[in-house]
Amino acid sequence: MFNKEIYIDRRRKLLSTVNSGLILLMGNEESSINYHDNQYPFRQDSNFLYFFGIDRPGLVGLIDVDANESMLFGDDVSVEDIVWTGPMPSLAQQGSEVGVSKTANYKSVHNYLDKALKAKQHIHFLPPYRPENAAKLNYWLNIPLEKLKDESSVILIKAIVAQRAVKSAEEVAEIEIAVNTTIDMQTEAARLAQDGVSETHIAGVIHGIALSAGGHLAFPTILTVNGQILHNHSQGNILHNGQMLLVDCGAETAMHYGGDLTRTSPVSQKFTSRQKELYDIVVDAHEAAVNFLKPGKYYKDAHLLACETLVNGLKSVGLMKGDTKDAVAQGAHAMFFQCGLGHLMGLDTHDMEDLGEQYVGYTDELKKSTQFGLKSLRLGRQVEEGFVLTVEPGIYIIPELIDLWKSENKFLDFINYDNLEKYKDFGGIRIEEDLLITENGNRILGKNLPRNTELLKPNN
Amino acid sequence: MFNKEIYIDRRRKLLSTVNSGLILLMGNEESSINYHDNQYPFRQDSNFLYFFGIDRPGLVGLIDVDANESMLFGDDVSVEDIVWTGPMPSLAQQGSEVGVSKTANYKSVHNYLDKALKAKQHIHFLPPYRPENAAKLNYWLNIPLEKLKDESSVILIKAIVAQRAVKSAEEVAEIEIAVNTTIDMQTEAARLAQDGVSETHIAGVIHGIALSAGGHLAFPTILTVNGQILHNHSQGNILHNGQMLLVDCGAETAMHYGGDLTRTSPVSQKFTSRQKELYDIVVDAHEAAVNFLKPGKYYKDAHLLACETLVNGLKSVGLMKGDTKDAVAQGAHAMFFQCGLGHLMGLDTHDMEDLGEQYVGYTDELKKSTQFGLKSLRLGRQVEEGFVLTVEPGIYIIPELIDLWKSENKFLDFINYDNLEKYKDFGGIRIEEDLLITENGNRILGKNLPRNTELLKPNN
Ligand SMILES: [Mn+2]
Ligand SMILES: [Mn+2]
Repeated sequence: MFNKEIYIDRRRKLLSTVNSGLILLMGNEESSINYHDNQYPFRQDSNFLYFFGIDRPGLVGLIDVDANESMLFGDDVSVEDIVWTGPMPSLAQQGSEVGVSKTANYKSVHNYLDKALKAKQHIHFLPPYRPENAAKLNYWLNIPLEKLKDESSVILIKAIVAQRAVKSAEEVAEIEIAVNTTIDMQTEAARLAQDGVSETHIAGVIHGIALSAGGHLAFPTILTVNGQILHNHSQGNILHNGQMLLVDCGAETAMHYGGDLTRTSPVSQKFTSRQKELYDIVVDAHEAAVNFLKPGKYYKDAHLLACETLVNGLKSVGLMKGDTKDAVAQGAHAMFFQCGLGHLMGLDTHDMEDLGEQYVGYTDELKKSTQFGLKSLRLGRQVEEGFVLTVEPGIYIIPELIDLWKSENKFLDFINYDNLEKYKDFGGIRIEEDLLITENGNRILGKNLPRNTELLKPNN
Repeated sequence: MFNKEIYIDRRRKLLSTVNSGLILLMGNEESSINYHDNQYPFRQDSNFLYFFGIDRPGLVGLIDVDANESMLFGDDVSVEDIVWTGPMPSLAQQGSEVGVSKTANYKSVHNYLDKALKAKQHIHFLPPYRPENAAKLNYWLNIPLEKLKDESSVILIKAIVAQRAVKSAEEVAEIEIAVNTTIDMQTEAARLAQDGVSETHIAGVIHGIALSAGGHLAFPTILTVNGQILHNHSQGNILHNGQMLLVDCGAETAMHYGGDLTRTSPVSQKFTSRQKELYDIVVDAHEAAVNFLKPGKYYKDAHLLACETLVNGLKSVGLMKGDTKDAVAQGAHAMFFQCGLGHLMGLDTHDMEDLGEQYVGYTDELKKSTQFGLKSLRLGRQVEEGFVLTVEPGIYIIPELIDLWKSENKFLDFINYDNLEKYKDFGGIRIEEDLLITENGNRILGKNLPRNTELLKPNN
């Protein structure tokens, strides 16, 4: 937990932006896996963590803007509970650590909200992503489940996005701890990526590294020899020489700030020449975007620049052709790069995505594209000093997409289908770094982790 | 997945026991952690796994008892989805692997249930433990959320309990795989339990072992130098010589059968003499229960026998006094052993606990006690050949409980509070094994893992 002044300041700032009404921030609940007492590791809601800092289930935070007052609602453990749980700090104690002196039991939230509703005080709440919290909002505020998202407060969402998007020095330091643990995971994964080893084994070992560092995984690890499958959470393969292993993983600190890095390394000691060719193209795209990003630049332009760099490289190896800018404008590059260049990160890997991509990554003026490829770009707006974000270009050879577009005669002016057919078993490559936008440019977070084709393979 | 004949047989048996109506078995959904796209590792519902075997989100199984027919509802991935997920088997293919030829899209469940309701067919459903499924039952069957548990089908619950309680040879083999991985985790934890090592480090490493074996954890690991805190999921301590480390962990296979073992080992090479005294008492209680259990015996009696063994031992070291049977009958032993001796296990660590302890561990004739201690016994009924269950006695010195009972002058005839005061910093000991009830007795599952005070500490 940070110093209590930090939480007091954050709430003060939020309160002044929202201007009037009652701000309702719901903590998360325990969630059963397969029966009541077997529960997923508890993860506190990130907005609750940001403004109230307390990392335990069963809490609600209220900020009464009109009364200029913060409150916490939750239940203390009974003497009988203590037999099972050991001594626990009271909510009053925990509240005092984050500068909240007014606490009450959980049940009384309902009453408090009822009174506010009767007094016609506006209740600002966020769109719920956990069904337990949706059910509570439905019950307390008498809003149908299917209308909760629409009736959530855009004023509150925008105020929180403005605040959380710019990271303080303490937050950057915490993120960098997570990034460094993530680098340890990547280093070990690259070392273990040997012929005959299973994906599962490596995934287990690096998960252990994140836990042993005192935190968790920020998100389920992608670790696969089939890097072209973008949402690939299966880890059932045995590695073979000649394959590439794509590892996209992140550690989360005990305070829940996370890292998010991807490396693609050869299972044998060296890339094949074909692998190296495409790998170097991804490195070029990565460098182009990193060199471009500084305060005031549109992230969307960094994405397009990376796409153009990819197209130029793909032209040089005979997989694409035609005018580069035309190809990108029409979306032909999305045969190879179907997703976006990156996203904001912080307490969430896709920071604040629960609040809605349109508010986090775009603005009232800049709307998200609907074009295949660009529609998966989570971040388009101008970046600012203090933003922390990823840059993660890739080349993914997806046989099903080749078959589909070829059958539709799509982008015949830009894609060399004859050559591409020979790459159908190629797989996928991604390189991902975490960047802090600085006053005049940016800084790649964390200690050094090789990004070029001379990948770290110690003890070999 | 087992052979499809096994699933066909299971459904046939269930259908014949339930006798009439429509059996609705809901698979689980993905569940968001902190924003929609960041999700907990998917865990299929165990009842769904048992009868339909398919391990993916978004499925509903129906067994129409009247029509003698099984159906599966769920959606196939679209061509656009395949770009992100890679090729996936269709529901029709997956259905055929478990002997279900009738499949339909997810949306059509609602229609099907509507027709059944109009035809006055009784719909048997289970009490939901996931809020997503509760919301769906509420919507489909028009039953208020708070009434779903009461309106769930006791006939179905009892039929499933009868079937799942007795494990087949294939199930026992699968459980034993999980137990053996759990033994690997225990062995490594005992080896790492050295002065200066953190709980977190060891927990991370053994979690990695479970994942590397191709499965998951069956439940969040308890790994602590404060073994007296029974529901202790914090792992923030550094181990010191003279402490004991309690590790209660379980691996789950890819098919979701689990193990559940506890060992308590000294951080230094040897127990202190005081630790060894109490440890040996727990070993005696464990052996008494294991030697007692065979088909026809009440598990509750094994629990009481273990309690009496504990009391005799505690009398021998001066912590208890008086008549042993009286002490146990009145519940005085619960100062040291506050919980139950064990539970059924299988697809769930506390097997079928979602269906209700009263149906799983007790019978219409044998009700659960309300006495402190006994009320935490999850299993009381007679055991049968094919049951798989844990035996996990312990001694837990809980300072808060000592203070509470002493202030109430509770059990002055049985508890030597003066001596007990000196043990307030003692901690807790538990020994847990997994047993298969056999024709004439029982068999401890898995390869050998030392249980006596000469604990496995290789490489030292
Ligand atoms: Mn990322
Ligand atoms: Mn157990």
